Amino acid sequence: MLRTHTCGELRLSDVNKTVTLSGWVQKSRDLGGMTFIDLRDRYGITQLAFNEDGDKDLNSRARNVSREYVIQVTGTVIERESKNKNNPTGEIEILVKDFKILNESQTPPFTIEDNTDGGDELRMKYRYLDLRRNEVRKNLELRHRMAIETRNYLDKLNFLEVETPVLIKSTPEGARDFVVPSRMNEGQFYALPQSPQTFKQLLMVGGFDRYYQIVKCFRDEDLRADRQPEFTQIDCEMSFVEQQDILDTFEGLVRHLFKTVKKIEMPGVPHMTYANAMKYYGNDKPDTRFEMKFVDFKAVTGGKNFKVFDDAEAVIAICAEGASDYTRKQLDELTEWVKRPQLGATGLIYARHNADGTLKSSVDKFYNEEDLKKWSEACASKPGDLILVLAGPEEKTRKAMSELRLEMGNRLGLRDKTKFSALWVIDFPLLEWNDGDPNLLASLAGRWHAKHHPFTSPKPEDYSLLKTDPGAVRANAYDLVINGVEIGGGSIRIHDRQLQAQMFELLGFTKEEAQKQFGFLMNAFEFGAPPHGGLAFGFDRLCSLFGGSDSIRDFIAFPKNNSGRDVMIDSPSEISDEQLKELHIASLINQTAAK
Amino acid sequence: MLRTHTCGELRLSDVNKTVTLSGWVQKSRDLGGMTFIDLRDRYGITQLAFNEDGDKDLNSRARNVSREYVIQVTGTVIERESKNKNNPTGEIEILVKDFKILNESQTPPFTIEDNTDGGDELRMKYRYLDLRRNEVRKNLELRHRMAIETRNYLDKLNFLEVETPVLIKSTPEGARDFVVPSRMNEGQFYALPQSPQTFKQLLMVGGFDRYYQIVKCFRDEDLRADRQPEFTQIDCEMSFVEQQDILDTFEGLVRHLFKTVKKIEMPGVPHMTYANAMKYYGNDKPDTRFEMKFVDFKAVTGGKNFKVFDDAEAVIAICAEGASDYTRKQLDELTEWVKRPQLGATGLIYARHNADGTLKSSVDKFYNEEDLKKWSEACASKPGDLILVLAGPEEKTRKAMSELRLEMGNRLGLRDKTKFSALWVIDFPLLEWNDGDPNLLASLAGRWHAKHHPFTSPKPEDYSLLKTDPGAVRANAYDLVINGVEIGGGSIRIHDRQLQAQMFELLGFTKEEAQKQFGFLMNAFEFGAPPHGGLAFGFDRLCSLFGGSDSIRDFIAFPKNNSGRDVMIDSPSEISDEQLKELHIASLINQTAAK
Repeated sequence: MLRTHTCGELRLSDVNKTVTLSGWVQKSRDLGGMTFIDLRDRYGITQLAFNEDGDKDLNSRARNVSREYVIQVTGTVIERESKNKNNPTGEIEILVKDFKILNESQTPPFTIEDNTDGGDELRMKYRYLDLRRNEVRKNLELRHRMAIETRNYLDKLNFLEVETPVLIKSTPEGARDFVVPSRMNEGQFYALPQSPQTFKQLLMVGGFDRYYQIVKCFRDEDLRADRQPEFTQIDCEMSFVEQQDILDTFEGLVRHLFKTVKKIEMPGVPHMTYANAMKYYGNDKPDTRFEMKFVDFKAVTGGKNFKVFDDAEAVIAICAEGASDYTRKQLDELTEWVKRPQLGATGLIYARHNADGTLKSSVDKFYNEEDLKKWSEACASKPGDLILVLAGPEEKTRKAMSELRLEMGNRLGLRDKTKFSALWVIDFPLLEWNDGDPNLLASLAGRWHAKHHPFTSPKPEDYSLLKTDPGAVRANAYDLVINGVEIGGGSIRIHDRQLQAQMFELLGFTKEEAQKQFGFLMNAFEFGAPPHGGLAFGFDRLCSLFGGSDSIRDFIAFPKNNSGRDVMIDSPSEISDEQLKELHIASLINQTAAK
Repeated sequence: MLRTHTCGELRLSDVNKTVTLSGWVQKSRDLGGMTFIDLRDRYGITQLAFNEDGDKDLNSRARNVSREYVIQVTGTVIERESKNKNNPTGEIEILVKDFKILNESQTPPFTIEDNTDGGDELRMKYRYLDLRRNEVRKNLELRHRMAIETRNYLDKLNFLEVETPVLIKSTPEGARDFVVPSRMNEGQFYALPQSPQTFKQLLMVGGFDRYYQIVKCFRDEDLRADRQPEFTQIDCEMSFVEQQDILDTFEGLVRHLFKTVKKIEMPGVPHMTYANAMKYYGNDKPDTRFEMKFVDFKAVTGGKNFKVFDDAEAVIAICAEGASDYTRKQLDELTEWVKRPQLGATGLIYARHNADGTLKSSVDKFYNEEDLKKWSEACASKPGDLILVLAGPEEKTRKAMSELRLEMGNRLGLRDKTKFSALWVIDFPLLEWNDGDPNLLASLAGRWHAKHHPFTSPKPEDYSLLKTDPGAVRANAYDLVINGVEIGGGSIRIHDRQLQAQMFELLGFTKEEAQKQFGFLMNAFEFGAPPHGGLAFGFDRLCSLFGGSDSIRDFIAFPKNNSGRDVMIDSPSEISDEQLKELHIASLINQTAAK
């Protein structure tokens, strides 16, 4: 080893020891006869002292060492005169006897500090330097710990981690697949898995009983800030279970993670139907760190000749606690906020429930104090609260109100990143109508699309609706939501060949297509498939939630940018004609360029 | 849960309990008034008893249940009259009160037994049924345990598991890459990693100090029995270390695995130079469960007018202990064996060291008893041993003798799969000449090729040879070999930009090519790269070694066949024109077909 200790471990009790440390020069202070260097590694920072009295040459060499040089020093641990209580090694320093430059460094393009001066783009390009910063390293240490604790928990419950293949078959019923041309099978392609869904179901058919995997998945989507073309799931499946068993097991996992990683005792995770989530929060992943539920104001606002409300399909209110002192200016600004094209509300109505108990609205022309009392009762406002009302088409209004609710949560400080509120959203619809989702192949538009995936079991009590009203069929499907973030979800699966065939038919597959793409699974169902179900958690997102960040990128060692590029290695890139030819493909771009 | 207990957990102490079990019908015996069913799940087998006296209808329904049906039963645990001591649940049975068929099953295409009647091809196609067999499941349980223990060991030593990207950049200096066309970056391709090599080095540059990952890697090679296009590595890297530190750390891992998984205390792992491995075993991965080292017979056989030996570049002997009673017929057969085209020896000379101490050779015409005594001394034969000699061109003869040695090891029962002998082979050559390796692109033939990879550090004492005699340069590279199987290997890496540039030049890269493909790594070396090194173990192979199998396929849940096909899901397969078009590529095969 090029060291006897790390830069994070020496203490007062080590005084007088001769030690060797290796690390990076964090900073250097030249005090004339003395030079001090802060030496950094993953484990901490230790101060080095070079004393001219001891060795003039050593001190002058130390002066020439710059930031991020890699050096190895040998010296004696001594007690520091001015101790630094903020640093675990701050009571000692190393009086250096000898040192060696292991590697020089150019001046980094940004500072390796907690508050760096580097912008996003620059830090992505020099990711290996960004990784030296405490914050980034701590995120990845957290991720490591989360993975270890996930495995510990599941291993104790007899889950087996089984690796499923990465080179599989293209089944573009979900998002787009990434594909891989085969050299040995001319004209054919593998696909990268969007999830190990069918394989984990086959493991259940194979009697594996309890499976998990922390696994990379791939989706060729147009990227948003919190999406990556490759992402990691905690993927799980269980046999001989009902929905409640899965919810219990994985609520246990989440509570175990909070306990071991965050030292937080989580209460039990409540359940909420999809219907109620939409009714009370306008959102299938409500942030339940705060209440501020939707209240249907249709009844309490009707019949007062206020056309905006009377003509609206929906009139919805929320009560923002303690916000009655919002100024006119603040309310005007909030009105502009809801009118932005992204939300598209036509306006915002409000009523102040003043501290003195009086009620005052922006539509006093139509509603007198008596009317407003009904408003107050309907949403249980108290003196000091602010009632906000949106009206318009049902879906659009709910969506806008959901955003407004979250915004008010932010403004009122109700979305504390150190507080966690989890819930299970259950009873999702089985299907949704695809009227041209850009993340799906164009040929799939104008069809029913599986809300979760085509292997999800409808609720038995809704079977009869499959033929008459597919959109009303509820699924045995569930999502775990924490702080308004969808951490993951799953379902009880179909394990009956006939029902699975019916499902494919509903999704617009011909019998031949279904057999060609999923025949292996339907055949497997002929040989004693057990009842089974499972879920998958987005591991990147779970880590970012635990780390208090909105961006999953901060928790991925080498993320890609919004164009799916790795700007550090400059990928994707062109490949040689020799490679293309061996793979039996031609690039249409090259051909066009060559013409 | 659709059960209160698994099929492996009930014991005499559970008698009189009412329990519910779910599982598969392993077999059923109809004894008229009684039906017995063996119910199987992952955890074991429990006997069910259906008694006509109790419930006639129940018994008659039980009779109609066939092999591999999935059933759920409720009943009382009772003590068995005829106990089965070979089954942990063999002292009890369940007197069934009620049961339900959860799913029916067609008759499986092969029996779900330890000794199945299914051939390889059939079992691959119905892998989900093969997975139900104890043997296959136990292999994957072993794999799970190996992964858990690997992580436990490395976590305790402060290694961080970091996920590196799967969609990377094509750098076809090693084997061929699998590539992935990018939809969003027209005309460009990602590649799947052959290993996370450059990323783990960047993590070291990023100060991560100790990294590991159990990770899928991909190589587009022509497949052999023990190769798969996707395979799993235990991939590791450490900073501020020298070669010995890495050998110690990972010898520790292997010993930990043997101890925890196999309950075997491994002795320390000896080191052997590559030169000695070739000299004594003709092989860089010698099976050291037995000695039978090569002995150079050139000196002791020369000058006796036996032209076969005198004209040969190499004359090499081994001494097969206790094989002097090999019959003439056995020796003739062995001679034919070495003359097969795969080995291509021209013949086999032998000398018996008889039990009475006399020596008798197949070339007595040229060598008298006195001469043979020299043979005996040279290879330390004892009465009862058999000396086998091959002669011919150096490399070919060593290779043939290596095979003969392994064959004799097999025939003499010296290669016991429950015994383990490990060694580190060190000081590998840095380079080898590529005269047309079919696993490399044709354009790379007629060049030096990195024996390990282009990032491996030459031994400092051999730097001077880089320009004068590249083939003689030794690397700081090492392989772990157990029982003649290469489990993995690694090296101390180059961390100096100049040396790395020189290495690329030696490998025939122009400056521009090197910069285009590996510029990011060489740039990283400008910013304080620490000395570092690491290794990777083939996880599939390590598992198969622990499981006592020669085939890695047995330890992969869903393996591919020798054409890289998954015959179960029928992949790779054709993709739609819509997909091809979106990816900006054309299939040359489709085009040809269309003409």
